[in-house]
Amino acid sequence: QVNPTRLLQRIASLGACGALSGGGVSRLALTDADAQGRAELLRQMRELDMEIRIDPVGNIFGIHAGVEDAVVMMGSHIDTVSTGGLYDGTLGVIAGLEVVACLKDAGIRPRHPVVVAAFTNEEGARYAPDMLGSLVYSGVMDVQDAYRITGCDGSVLGEELRRIGYCGMQSGPQAIHAYVELHIEQGPVLEDRGLNIGIVTGVQGISWTEITVEGRSAHAGTTPMRLRHDAGLAAAYITMGLSDMVARMGPEQLATVGALSLAPNLVNVVASRAVMTVDLRNPDNTALCAAESTLAKLMGEAATRYGVNVSHRTLARFEPVPFTSTLVDTIEATARKMDLSCMRLYSGAGHDAQMIAPIAPTAMIFVPSVAGISHNIREYTHPDDIMNGANLLLRVVTDQAGI
Amino acid sequence: QVNPTRLLQRIASLGACGALSGGGVSRLALTDADAQGRAELLRQMRELDMEIRIDPVGNIFGIHAGVEDAVVMMGSHIDTVSTGGLYDGTLGVIAGLEVVACLKDAGIRPRHPVVVAAFTNEEGARYAPDMLGSLVYSGVMDVQDAYRITGCDGSVLGEELRRIGYCGMQSGPQAIHAYVELHIEQGPVLEDRGLNIGIVTGVQGISWTEITVEGRSAHAGTTPMRLRHDAGLAAAYITMGLSDMVARMGPEQLATVGALSLAPNLVNVVASRAVMTVDLRNPDNTALCAAESTLAKLMGEAATRYGVNVSHRTLARFEPVPFTSTLVDTIEATARKMDLSCMRLYSGAGHDAQMIAPIAPTAMIFVPSVAGISHNIREYTHPDDIMNGANLLLRVVTDQAGI
Ligand SMILES: NC(=O)NCCC(=O)O
Ligand SMILES: NC(=O)NCCC(=O)O
Repeated sequence: QVNPTRLLQRIASLGACGALSGGGVSRLALTDADAQGRAELLRQMRELDMEIRIDPVGNIFGIHAGVEDAVVMMGSHIDTVSTGGLYDGTLGVIAGLEVVACLKDAGIRPRHPVVVAAFTNEEGARYAPDMLGSLVYSGVMDVQDAYRITGCDGSVLGEELRRIGYCGMQSGPQAIHAYVELHIEQGPVLEDRGLNIGIVTGVQGISWTEITVEGRSAHAGTTPMRLRHDAGLAAAYITMGLSDMVARMGPEQLATVGALSLAPNLVNVVASRAVMTVDLRNPDNTALCAAESTLAKLMGEAATRYGVNVSHRTLARFEPVPFTSTLVDTIEATARKMDLSCMRLYSGAGHDAQMIAPIAPTAMIFVPSVAGISHNIREYTHPDDIMNGANLLLRVVTDQAGI
Repeated sequence: QVNPTRLLQRIASLGACGALSGGGVSRLALTDADAQGRAELLRQMRELDMEIRIDPVGNIFGIHAGVEDAVVMMGSHIDTVSTGGLYDGTLGVIAGLEVVACLKDAGIRPRHPVVVAAFTNEEGARYAPDMLGSLVYSGVMDVQDAYRITGCDGSVLGEELRRIGYCGMQSGPQAIHAYVELHIEQGPVLEDRGLNIGIVTGVQGISWTEITVEGRSAHAGTTPMRLRHDAGLAAAYITMGLSDMVARMGPEQLATVGALSLAPNLVNVVASRAVMTVDLRNPDNTALCAAESTLAKLMGEAATRYGVNVSHRTLARFEPVPFTSTLVDTIEATARKMDLSCMRLYSGAGHDAQMIAPIAPTAMIFVPSVAGISHNIREYTHPDDIMNGANLLLRVVTDQAGI
């Protein structure tokens, strides 16, 4: 059994790094606040006598020694969006440390080393794509390409990584026996159904596009509507078109225009430029491709209708990822043995687990999020739910690690 | 006759203040660039032995002495939008100096003093409302209220005025015999019809509103569309609704959403907040009121449809202003005597002249703008047109001043 006081204290200590005055945290990847969070994480790992490795993209691995090479890995991330809560990502890392604390308390050296990973820039809020650290760790993205990525604030990933001192020289574990990530659901399903645990069977597809509309600045009082090339109006057209599309496609399809900037952004000047992001998600890749086609159509229509140039680039594109069915089955059986009520569900949010899935047996555990709220400072998960999740993680990991 | 070389040189000297590398100028009111422009203006006024007065809102008056108290005033502004050209505002001020230079060359002391005014923050791009300096000078706005205005960049007008050293202690001329403002048309009509001069009969109504939409930040991957409170989507709805409205109302009605900012402005977070501006214009006040009602309806619909809070405040509201018919007639007759082709037209842009109209006989002269482009770095007016306008101004002002 995990220690509730100690676990909640660990979460609070991390929550103090980048804390917002009105509650919640802002710990965008590789900012000073993230560096503070990383320092606190390293402190907690050292306290547990874990071996620490930091890889070239800043992923942090804390290792509790075992007998064999292949590790059992728990993990998630400690970066947040700029209006984040205390649990998204942090819970999976901190619960991992609590599992190690239990092993340490019991003086247990497992067959498989037990590792806690904190992956860089999972949120994707500062640097796209999301899940970037685990994507590099799993070998899909080259670290040199990652270094060159420009963030939403104009910063360059490699420079920020060096600036905060987390461009490591080591490599993470080479062989993974099993990867298990505990995370808050970030959606309303478990709470709605009054269940303790979500057994995650996979993650839906994610498609991120950045669109740049180039129009022509003009005087708002003298330029007839028919002579305008209004970049802001074109952006609004695309936004409304996506909203109509999701209404047609049904509840599985999500579309979000989360970021939008106009230039010169003045009251009496028709916008010459709009830069916007589109986040499309669907558990079904064929449907997601259809949504992307609709977006392409909308961009073309906007260009014609408003006499603007519309260009775009892909910020992230991940197909739906199913988790390893044997491990999913094992977790579900363990939960039932522990008398935890549960259901299987698909994840709406992206997770580091989806990047590990192609290279190792992988699965995830969800605990309820109050009112399904996440990426919001009011994100909250009850202590009871946290303990249920952490205890299930402890049982699954000790089983997998061979104790 | 004005001196073409000298006049163009004066424009170029002012254009160097706040010059953009790609052409055009950015001389937002009370910024360092505006301060440079003001210094250059004062230099040119001193060269002409003009008496200089700076009033508490930073309006600059250069006075060429006469016999009586009541002045003949020329004027406009030297502030620009951030993507402005060399002529908007500047032409009226510089042509005024050239008129004074001609009087000085001829050694003439007119019956009415001849004044050149440069009014503060005409553009309204940094501080709303537009035409703020002339609004204070004409006694409609209290200067203490003006000092408290917060700009689009968070700066406070009174602080910036003191910072650049233009919070003057003097007052402008008390009695105005006539006010004549030369300005570029900023629209396509004169060029379309191949005419030299626009005889401006008035300025259309202007309505500026700032709208704040408060929604709720949420996870773009886990929050069902029906549970969202998307501030960005509500803003797009209002923007498209205004576009539909102008299509219904016909070409006299203009609507522009020139500024829009989202928070937290991240790819995977539903926007919790949108702040946008709406610029509505119509030569007919009843029609403009109808457009404002449609905007109010759209805000209400957006609130209901997207479950957001929509609040608003008026940034500027000016009814259409007719100019003084006797002065308009005089200018037209003078133009025809000079063999300048001309037509009467209404101004789409706001001008300082509209604030002077209630306190003195007022009229304006327009010269063509190439392709009707303004509030754009490609704004241009041919030297021939500049000379025509300046010579007409010279003739009208010398007549009015009693020479
Ligand atoms: N879990 C989580 O919030 N991930 C961020 C990436 C995304 O799904 O937008
Ligand atoms: N002339 C001019 O551009 N005035 C600025 C105020 C406005 O019409 O928006």
